[in-house]
Amino acid sequence: MRLSRYFLPVLKETPADAQIVSHRYMLRAGMIKQASAGIYSWLPLGYRVLRRIEQIVHEEQQRAGHIPLLMPTLQSADLWRESGRYDAYGPEMLRIRDRHDRDMLFGPTNEELITDIFRSYVRSYKDLPMTLYHIQWKFRDEVRPRFGVMRGREFLMKDGYNFDLTKEDALHAYNRHLVSYLRTYERMGLQAIPMRADSGPIGGDDTHEFLVLAETGESEVFYDSEITDLKFGDREIDYDSVEQCQAVLEEFTSRYARTDETHDEEVFNRIPEDRRRVARGIEVGQIFYFGTKYSEPMGATVQGPDGKQVPVHMGSHGIGVSRLLGAIIEASHDDKGIIWPEGVTPFHVGIVNLKQGDDEADAACQALYDGFTALGLDPLYDDRDERAGGKFATMDLIGLPWRITVGPRGLKNGVVELTSRRTGESEELPPEEAVRRVAAIYAAG
Amino acid sequence: MRLSRYFLPVLKETPADAQIVSHRYMLRAGMIKQASAGIYSWLPLGYRVLRRIEQIVHEEQQRAGHIPLLMPTLQSADLWRESGRYDAYGPEMLRIRDRHDRDMLFGPTNEELITDIFRSYVRSYKDLPMTLYHIQWKFRDEVRPRFGVMRGREFLMKDGYNFDLTKEDALHAYNRHLVSYLRTYERMGLQAIPMRADSGPIGGDDTHEFLVLAETGESEVFYDSEITDLKFGDREIDYDSVEQCQAVLEEFTSRYARTDETHDEEVFNRIPEDRRRVARGIEVGQIFYFGTKYSEPMGATVQGPDGKQVPVHMGSHGIGVSRLLGAIIEASHDDKGIIWPEGVTPFHVGIVNLKQGDDEADAACQALYDGFTALGLDPLYDDRDERAGGKFATMDLIGLPWRITVGPRGLKNGVVELTSRRTGESEELPPEEAVRRVAAIYAAG
Repeated sequence: MRLSRYFLPVLKETPADAQIVSHRYMLRAGMIKQASAGIYSWLPLGYRVLRRIEQIVHEEQQRAGHIPLLMPTLQSADLWRESGRYDAYGPEMLRIRDRHDRDMLFGPTNEELITDIFRSYVRSYKDLPMTLYHIQWKFRDEVRPRFGVMRGREFLMKDGYNFDLTKEDALHAYNRHLVSYLRTYERMGLQAIPMRADSGPIGGDDTHEFLVLAETGESEVFYDSEITDLKFGDREIDYDSVEQCQAVLEEFTSRYARTDETHDEEVFNRIPEDRRRVARGIEVGQIFYFGTKYSEPMGATVQGPDGKQVPVHMGSHGIGVSRLLGAIIEASHDDKGIIWPEGVTPFHVGIVNLKQGDDEADAACQALYDGFTALGLDPLYDDRDERAGGKFATMDLIGLPWRITVGPRGLKNGVVELTSRRTGESEELPPEEAVRRVAAIYAAG
Repeated sequence: MRLSRYFLPVLKETPADAQIVSHRYMLRAGMIKQASAGIYSWLPLGYRVLRRIEQIVHEEQQRAGHIPLLMPTLQSADLWRESGRYDAYGPEMLRIRDRHDRDMLFGPTNEELITDIFRSYVRSYKDLPMTLYHIQWKFRDEVRPRFGVMRGREFLMKDGYNFDLTKEDALHAYNRHLVSYLRTYERMGLQAIPMRADSGPIGGDDTHEFLVLAETGESEVFYDSEITDLKFGDREIDYDSVEQCQAVLEEFTSRYARTDETHDEEVFNRIPEDRRRVARGIEVGQIFYFGTKYSEPMGATVQGPDGKQVPVHMGSHGIGVSRLLGAIIEASHDDKGIIWPEGVTPFHVGIVNLKQGDDEADAACQALYDGFTALGLDPLYDDRDERAGGKFATMDLIGLPWRITVGPRGLKNGVVELTSRRTGESEELPPEEAVRRVAAIYAAG
């Protein structure tokens, strides 16, 4: 993309109402604009990151064998009356009446709707196991929306639902989700720690929240410092293998790690003192096993191997897609702006032309641009007639992990400058070599 | 995808309440399920097609230089009061009140919101021309939703908005959209004819609707038969070229083609009688030029080259993404089911194993599956233990354009059967050759 043809409304001043760094940087980098309280428009740069995150979530869900579909945003109140949640859900549920005076709502979650889909079609245990998921906009009418996309009212979420014949099978689905979530977050450059949590209005016995450590986190968390040494890495997992998924669960949940809701001081104090950590965390996902809580009242049964009808065992599993942008920025920034991990960056590399209008510099930038594009990478080429300082400040603010600076002086020596946003380190090298270097980084990632 | 691990709830019986063929087939093929009146869940197969269509729209929009972003589904009523449309819009607008009693609405369209974004950031004519678009769920509270996704209440739409300094520039944006729409629809295997239309509640002087001819269309259309001979084909267009876009517009709109709203019997009768056609059409898109209708009341001005503030000239341009599934099926089906054009098919090829459990047949199917996957194509492998007749009926119903049938008898002679869904013609050939043949068809498309 050429910046002169893009819409990147970068702000020079820090918006007064933004209290946390991710909110400030998302506004300043022209990623979002508030449309009304807790509701945002995703400007082109923000939209690109949102799509990259969504894409990773899709890929990892499908790698785990989960099937995508899409449920609507608006739901009929009737299904929620069946489950008993219509009245139980508080004022965070946005209740709507249509022109025929029917009670509707903007879905805050989809247990009822997916259970209705399941019960409408699936009759036999032979069709199990099954996990269906979607990525769709949700609405929760927060009384005080704040922190930008971190606690908005309209937000994008991946929510998935497993349907299994037995509790044992459903717990495998739970573990499978835990494994796939670990992979998902690591691909985004995040360490998200599964912590024992409270199930809240979804209900259920087993639940883990995934938390990213950050000073601005909304939850207080307590953990054994050994847990932050764990990496999922690039291990190959057979998601059908009960043993493999169980082993990962045990590895990642055997050490103490809890939110304040489930924190147990006594157990915590048994950890050697130098490993006890009290910190803050941002919730970026949660998995639940809740058995037959919905299948029983809603009649989602299948015929078991013995010919008898049994309610299916279910769980639901969420990733906060839009909130992840905030969490990533909270975890990865400096005082100049955002530092995108390679996995989610809106553009793979920035090209800064120090002397726009100079034939040689323009041609070199164009050649770099074409080189990256031919390799399937997306460069952002700052081809505006601006001073170098302004161009660097914009690139630092929007946080592309790699920048190539092109100027007449370097070109005389046959080199351009490749700079890492994270370390600030620069290196001079021939343009073709710079393209190869950047391409190799992304190919490895 | 292996069918045994997929969720494809095909129905044997024709649903009683579905009046038109696309609605019937989408229900029977397990593509959609009604969640409430005019609101659908997109089951896995339907969701795949929806995503393919969305992808084509994105690609063609960006090829034309238009910039993607994403506006929220819920909007504040305040902006609509500024434009004067809050009260003017009828009961099709879903009005909502949040927990703080603020007036909100589920966006039926986005002129106000995009104009607000524009005016918040853009100050100079130097940032023009600019076209921003998004693909987002909309809601129109139709009094009698029907025909499945063709006239639903919650629907997915691409809506784009151009901002230009002059009427002349804005008309180029209009023409550019017309060109890109022609390309978009052709890639989906559709002939959509631009017809002079009425502007309705969007307002404006110039507008064309794109209509797909189909007996079940909601609009009566009148046209010169010569127009159906026009093809956009694979011509290369420079979207920045005023002349090239203008020439395409003239080519595709110089012959008589109007909806009943703008039909002029006298002009129509000047066409030679044997070329006069009266038919029905399905609207799949519309482009508008409406000048300063929104920019003026909402204060969306830029500084012109002479230093004076001028309101920008705008237009809006929509493609009915979810409704396109219905339109494509109306235009492409037979009595056995859907016939997907290659451009939008949910899977590129179906593999039918005539003898599941037979080692040789299973291995051959797996080899085909791996062969297609390695080439980046998505096969749907019917690996269920079902009779051949049932497998063929399912493949015909869901309409994959190509099917490969694998059975022990053919394998003895080293061949499988490749069948075209459209013509029904079959050919026996070695498996590797079948993979090459199918891959070549998609590479050419």
